[in-house]
Amino acid sequence: MNPPVVSVCLHSPYDFWCFSAVHSEWLRQHFPEMDLRLVSDTDARQELSETQVYFGWRFRPDWFPLAPRLAWIASPAAGTDHLPLAEAAADGVSVTRSYGFHGPPMAEHALGMILGFSRGLITSRRLQRTRTWWKDTVAEEFFDLAGATLAIIGCGSIGSHLAASARALGMHVIGVRRSIPVDDRGITWIATGDVAQAVAAADVVVNLLPASGDTYHYFERRLFGAFRPGALFVNLGRASTVDQQALLHALDTGRLRGAALDVTDPRPLPRGHPLRRHPRVLLTPKSAVFSRRYMDHAVAFFADNLRRYLTGQPLRGIATAAASSSLVPGG
Amino acid sequence: MNPPVVSVCLHSPYDFWCFSAVHSEWLRQHFPEMDLRLVSDTDARQELSETQVYFGWRFRPDWFPLAPRLAWIASPAAGTDHLPLAEAAADGVSVTRSYGFHGPPMAEHALGMILGFSRGLITSRRLQRTRTWWKDTVAEEFFDLAGATLAIIGCGSIGSHLAASARALGMHVIGVRRSIPVDDRGITWIATGDVAQAVAAADVVVNLLPASGDTYHYFERRLFGAFRPGALFVNLGRASTVDQQALLHALDTGRLRGAALDVTDPRPLPRGHPLRRHPRVLLTPKSAVFSRRYMDHAVAFFADNLRRYLTGQPLRGIATAAASSSLVPGG
Repeated sequence: MNPPVVSVCLHSPYDFWCFSAVHSEWLRQHFPEMDLRLVSDTDARQELSETQVYFGWRFRPDWFPLAPRLAWIASPAAGTDHLPLAEAAADGVSVTRSYGFHGPPMAEHALGMILGFSRGLITSRRLQRTRTWWKDTVAEEFFDLAGATLAIIGCGSIGSHLAASARALGMHVIGVRRSIPVDDRGITWIATGDVAQAVAAADVVVNLLPASGDTYHYFERRLFGAFRPGALFVNLGRASTVDQQALLHALDTGRLRGAALDVTDPRPLPRGHPLRRHPRVLLTPKSAVFSRRYMDHAVAFFADNLRRYLTGQPLRGIATAAASSSLVPGG
Repeated sequence: MNPPVVSVCLHSPYDFWCFSAVHSEWLRQHFPEMDLRLVSDTDARQELSETQVYFGWRFRPDWFPLAPRLAWIASPAAGTDHLPLAEAAADGVSVTRSYGFHGPPMAEHALGMILGFSRGLITSRRLQRTRTWWKDTVAEEFFDLAGATLAIIGCGSIGSHLAASARALGMHVIGVRRSIPVDDRGITWIATGDVAQAVAAADVVVNLLPASGDTYHYFERRLFGAFRPGALFVNLGRASTVDQQALLHALDTGRLRGAALDVTDPRPLPRGHPLRRHPRVLLTPKSAVFSRRYMDHAVAFFADNLRRYLTGQPLRGIATAAASSSLVPGG
């Protein structure tokens, strides 16, 4: 019998999202029983006829007929909204997402955004060029994170990591999710149905909701209206979960002190879009998940799953069309 | 015998730096044996003839002859470079600084500044208005704090607090100070003489040095030349400890990735100063120590010392002309 074929197609303009020679050497050493093949984006179609396991960023729905032996698609991404989950299910192919290592960079990104507002850094960078002195402005707008309350909406493994960092700074943390975990991890848990209660109590609201039918425009005018006046809104989840008109309204009426957005709709926003020019808005280019060690962690996660696959154990991070595109395992 | 007179002169344009009615009520309740007098900035001179204890932001050298009964000047500030230490010593008057509560806001400020650079937030805020998409720029310049090394120069109680927050994000911390403490607090300690070794190993260098003869232009061209290429420099200490020409040189030659400065010389910098316009410099208006609870903590610290004073125990935070203007207790 021929050794099982694992096709790896992991390319990116960014080296930290590329599968390197070091990674392939390491996988080959640890899995000598596999036939590991490195596939370019353009060759992917042709290489699928023998592929049993596919490890890649993307898989097109029209590739299934070309891959008769395919059993498992492994994605290094946390979200799955870009993957053909329904088609995979129909074809009897397992799909796995990756998790457990997005927490540190996303917690750093969220904390940086929060501190950028709470310490007046965004304002300072704006005024340092033109204003002689802007101490009064910062004195008016800053707030202490120690003692403040952070609400994390869609609080799964990434949120729990952010919660730990925020608690280290003395923040109180409210976690909102569908199913309340048994262990509290120092978080006050609130069920999704009571989200209005969570945002009313929070100085900072961080959104980590995945994209799904349930979460489309989750943050709309009524929910922003329930925020504590002067709260900060941070979106590291999916753009589709926020009604941007409602967000602008909440900014302009003063309900929100500011907004920090790693995702927008469309991406990028047109030049001259009001969110780009708003003095109290910080936009980042979907960089919250950036980490120089991203692929190291993703390959380690994949290797653990590959061991499970070869020994007939259940895979970790199984993505199903029902729980489509969850950023949050079990969330 | 008349009750001892405590004069309190604590005014500021910022309410969080003012002594409030709540504070005076609380002190009067806890120290009924004292004659607590609230003094305005303009009245301070006239009120000194009976004052035994003076709790205030400032004390002018020419006030000593007006205060024959004065035994103790208590300052709510951490630094003492604005206080007449030599004159007080000559007059037999004790001077105390305050400490133990500047750590949380300053750690938040330092972390915010560091994350502002490490997550590309300063760059993003600059480019979001004019650039269609700037993901490549952020991908090039960001770095992970998890696993990175932070060197804290002048690592006393404030530095130890910052160290704890940085370690919660997975950073390695090097502390540089004159006398190495016995307990390591998870910090790798390096003596002042080996500071070049510390900055060579660090991705981020935070300066917390106090102003003194020893520290004038401590960061000069040679020390910046010892930094790891691409390091970030953060100054929350005193402006006089940095040679700004050397700093600009280090920025322009690319030795430094960026600089975040809460203090400058002069303050404010003239409009059009190169540090104001530099794309990789963040200036804040001496706001690192801002905390809404500042005066609550300062009054609690004073009350503890007042109890010691009344019971003949040694005061905490004694400032001497020799250890002039230390930001760092024992540092």
